[in-house]
Amino acid sequence: MNLPQQHDNQISESDRRSFYKVIFSRRDVRGQFLPDPIPDDVLSRILYAAHYAPSVGFMQPWDFIIIKSKTVREQIHNDFKRAHNEAAEMFSGEHQDIYRSLKLEGILESPLNICITCDTKRTGPVVIGRTHIKEMDTYSSVCAIQNFWLAARAEGLGVGWVSILHENKLKAILNLPDHIAPVGYLCIGKVKHFYQKPELESAGWLPRMPIENLIYFDQWGDNSQTHNSSLVSQIKKDLTFPEHSVQEKE
Amino acid sequence: MNLPQQHDNQISESDRRSFYKVIFSRRDVRGQFLPDPIPDDVLSRILYAAHYAPSVGFMQPWDFIIIKSKTVREQIHNDFKRAHNEAAEMFSGEHQDIYRSLKLEGILESPLNICITCDTKRTGPVVIGRTHIKEMDTYSSVCAIQNFWLAARAEGLGVGWVSILHENKLKAILNLPDHIAPVGYLCIGKVKHFYQKPELESAGWLPRMPIENLIYFDQWGDNSQTHNSSLVSQIKKDLTFPEHSVQEKE
Repeated sequence: MNLPQQHDNQISESDRRSFYKVIFSRRDVRGQFLPDPIPDDVLSRILYAAHYAPSVGFMQPWDFIIIKSKTVREQIHNDFKRAHNEAAEMFSGEHQDIYRSLKLEGILESPLNICITCDTKRTGPVVIGRTHIKEMDTYSSVCAIQNFWLAARAEGLGVGWVSILHENKLKAILNLPDHIAPVGYLCIGKVKHFYQKPELESAGWLPRMPIENLIYFDQWGDNSQTHNSSLVSQIKKDLTFPEHSVQEKE
Repeated sequence: MNLPQQHDNQISESDRRSFYKVIFSRRDVRGQFLPDPIPDDVLSRILYAAHYAPSVGFMQPWDFIIIKSKTVREQIHNDFKRAHNEAAEMFSGEHQDIYRSLKLEGILESPLNICITCDTKRTGPVVIGRTHIKEMDTYSSVCAIQNFWLAARAEGLGVGWVSILHENKLKAILNLPDHIAPVGYLCIGKVKHFYQKPELESAGWLPRMPIENLIYFDQWGDNSQTHNSSLVSQIKKDLTFPEHSVQEKE
């Protein structure tokens, strides 16, 4: 079959609604994992989504280390506990108490962990689009992580990104060569439920920032004109758009 | 109205198909931009998608600098040209010729550019989940970029990430304070068409890597067991899944 070089790419209104439903119902899952194994066909689709992320110079710098081994996960979990204790000491007063009460990972409860890496040497020393901003390879792996995360949500699975780890320890446990960076360490699995809002927002740790405060035109600086713009009026009108996208039935 | 704390989050089979259609039809657009302005309601929805990306410690470190000014875009474009020439010199022989023939940005042709930044000081010096891996704030902004990119595709718009720029020059043109990093500089707009495959793949610059070569189990190293796994068998069976997702009609 000869595939066309261009395609019509019609995304319907209904496709768009479905897409936003996934975007706005995605959560960082820590405490709601169920131990059920993930079927191969589901994981395969999620990995394809990750592999089709954008990458600088089509470098595709990612690898996927799929971790089921209890022993390996226990080693990672031990490092998490050490880092978590160190982290708690960095917060003071009430914030330290709240910090210690938060459940921040599901390494052992989830059926599967996955480390998405970046091979900084892939495709050779000069990469299109990475000649001036060297971090572009890592950013490509982060895009793969976000695709993975969203695809998992589309498959009804939760993902949590565990970043309270010592990178050198993580590299040692996973036996990563020097030029392979462990960009994201993720837990994935079925969940009891998804929360309606991010847990740190619900816990009162931090509020959702008003998006209109984050918008500038043409340059950083005085954003007084921001508040007179028709775009910002529209944004204020759309305040409940994320919430309604999630509630929408087909 | 009292919203439930948890929601059922049923993502239907049809939602999932729509989601994957967006994932697999997203492209890095350079040469196909049309000058048509982007309606406020469309841009508003895309910005909400970016703002609802995951962020470490719910830090939401991003700002959105929306650039319509011809003058500012010309300054950026001039820096691109300089960086692009420097980049060309890094490639040798035939690769340099191909590099020079590639169209790599749509700064002036697209109706709008946007810089998505990272405020490394937002929410104070200690951030949950960023106590050990300092780059987590930047990674959050990259997740926002990927959400932005996908949402644009869901709205029928193309996005191109321009990374052939001098970061210090970009910061100066956009008047960014020291603690604000310009993570991604994007062009966005309607397009004549989307390509079926990434342009660098079609141009024969690099092939799509077989995903089964990128999978390890439990640790980096010998991946001989990989090729006997039921997951990898499934992945090989799903080789045409991305292509079929795009072609699928409702």
